[in-house]
Parts: sequence; structure tokens; C-alpha cells
Amino acid sequence: MKDYTYDNFRDDLQKLNILKPDAILAIARGGLTLAHHLAEIFDIREVFTINAVSYEKTQKKETIDIFNIPNLHSYKNILIVDDISDSGETFKKVLKILKEKYKNLNFKTLAIFYKPSSKFKPDFYFQETNEWIRFFWEKY
Amino acid sequence: MKDYTYDNFRDDLQKLNILKPDAILAIARGGLTLAHHLAEIFDIREVFTINAVSYEKTQKKETIDIFNIPNLHSYKNILIVDDISDSGETFKKVLKILKEKYKNLNFKTLAIFYKPSSKFKPDFYFQETNEWIRFFWEKY
Repeated sequence: MKDYTYDNFRDDLQKLNILKPDAILAIARGGLTLAHHLAEIFDIREVFTINAVSYEKTQKKETIDIFNIPNLHSYKNILIVDDISDSGETFKKVLKILKEKYKNLNFKTLAIFYKPSSKFKPDFYFQETNEWIRFFWEKY
Repeated sequence: MKDYTYDNFRDDLQKLNILKPDAILAIARGGLTLAHHLAEIFDIREVFTINAVSYEKTQKKETIDIFNIPNLHSYKNILIVDDISDSGETFKKVLKILKEKYKNLNFKTLAIFYKPSSKFKPDFYFQETNEWIRFFWEKY
């Protein structure tokens, strides 16, 4: 297991090299703190959330509920953010739903961590890892 | 001006003495990081956001737009969170709108900082201050 501290997070944010989007969409809960910091960096107020909750149906089967899809019609370039692309199922399902609903928008994805075993590779990520990550907001 | 660091935030979160709500509603952007951490503390996935953007019309007049009101019908006790109750107008307007829409829900409010000059006093707050606060997520 690897601890990901707030200082690590700040270091990673310094390396950010992404064009300013029209809106940031955080996948809740994991993407909330990242979205908040990115909104400050990009100086934009258009920060929205979408909820994703995954259930393990069986040991091999994962089901993900996506809800609270925000109204994004006024925007063009959307940056979807989450803490980690682990199995990759959350990003995959969120993108699928959003692309169906908003056919003319450009979606880019950013995760702090990307696992090579993930079925989804974000457009941007800070670190690649095979480890279990304990994020600073989880340490209670 | 006073710097509010991530360590200060962690210290404040330790003092938290609030009953677990059914859902957390973050006022975006200011409440996002707080909501994320609270969701971990309370171990709940029901974290939603509402957007508040304030414009200074004149030096004395502030207008606040509230949008993306989430569906809260399945819940009873909602904790609304923001970074600071400064003028207090944001909390006041968000509460007014939510109470009109959801007459049977219980709303409680939490801010990290409360200014005595605020027109609104949150049910809970970590610190009272008269200073200008620079939050850790703002330091870019």
C-alpha cells in the first residue's frame, strides 16, 4: 500500500499540462478534492459532479450506478476527473452515458492514478501504479 | 490575511461533533474539499453539489445565482457545507431555495469559518474569524 499525501498531490498538480476546459466534472466522491483544486488552478466556477456508486455483485462482477447527470449543454470542452482509474469501469460507464446524452461535446479524462490493468486509460494522469493507494482524504 | 493549511483543516476535522447526515450537499466550489473529507469521515456516498456564483453588481449590491439543485427526495437529514460564511448571502439563498423545494427535509449547515459580520450563522463551524482567509486549495 502506498500513501498519497497532500504534499504529493500538490507536487502532481504542479506538473499539470492541460488546456483550460469550459467545465470540470468530478466523479463523486473520488474526484471532488481534485476538481476543487483544478477549478482554482484554471480559475473557473463551472464545476459539476456526477455520482457513481459501484456494487460488487459477485467476486467477479461489478455493477455501477451513475446518477445526477448534470446539465452540460452550455459548454463544449469538459474535463472529467476522478482519483483513480482502477478497474476502469467507472470512467467507461460515465463516458458512455455522457457521450450518448451530449453528442457534440468534447470529453477529456484525468485521473491522479492509472493502473495498467485498468480497462480504461484516461487522457491524462499523474502517476501509473500497481499498488493500492491510500489517499490523504481517506485517512481517518 | 490568514493562511489556512491542510494541516489546520485536519486538526479542525478532528474536532467534528455532528451526527451523520443522510446526505452531504457541497456548495461549489468552496465546499467541495470539505464535503469529500466529510463523506470519508461519515462513510457515506451520498455527496451532492449545488452551484452558487456571486456577482458584484455594485459595490454594495451582490447577486447570487444558484443552480444545479440536486434531487434530495430520498433523504431526510441534509448537511449543507461551504468553506466560509462571509457575507452569509450564499448560505441564506441556498437554504431559502432548498426549503421551498423540499419542505419536509431537515437542513443543517456547516462552514469551516464563520465571520461575526455574516448575516447568517451556520449551525456548525470550526472557527470564527474577522480575517481574510487564504485556503490551502487557493494557493496557486
